[in-house]
Amino acid sequence: MYRLLVLYNEPKDPAHFRKYYVETHLPLASKIPGVKKASYSFDVKPMGPGKSPYFCVFEADFESEAAMMSAFGSKEGQAVAGDVPNYASGGVTMVHFPVG
Amino acid sequence: MYRLLVLYNEPKDPAHFRKYYVETHLPLASKIPGVKKASYSFDVKPMGPGKSPYFCVFEADFESEAAMMSAFGSKEGQAVAGDVPNYASGGVTMVHFPVG
Repeated sequence: MYRLLVLYNEPKDPAHFRKYYVETHLPLASKIPGVKKASYSFDVKPMGPGKSPYFCVFEADFESEAAMMSAFGSKEGQAVAGDVPNYASGGVTMVHFPVG
Repeated sequence: MYRLLVLYNEPKDPAHFRKYYVETHLPLASKIPGVKKASYSFDVKPMGPGKSPYFCVFEADFESEAAMMSAFGSKEGQAVAGDVPNYASGGVTMVHFPVG
């Protein structure tokens, strides 16, 4: 399995992020082909003291790296990528890696 | 399910990290009680241009947040936490969150 991990920094407008993410972005993301499993959480806590460095975490699993790249090259994938600036005002980190 | 996500920055000595992590740290981590599933990758790529912000990603799933906290409070969990400075010379980010 191959995983996409999306780490969102605290946005300028957390309430807007939450609403937009759930009502608009996730429905768009659900159209991406080849997603085997996906989940997200706004309840991200640090291990130890202080504040979580991330406001929201999203993960999606694909069959392979090639399947993920193909998904993001699709019309649906491009729409999802293009939608991110509409809510992620704090910045976002996206990485991907094989899951054993 | 409840997930621990460990994000390692590039260490000062990547070769030492890799060797120590696989030969010493992961065997210690495998003794932590209550881990339902765990995986790691050194093959972390950024989505887009540039270099990955993380050198290594580790994830472990527990039944619940309480199970995870109990695991890290155990003798085995404390040994694992205490071992991290032995290889993670670039710093580490640890967060946890529910997985839907």
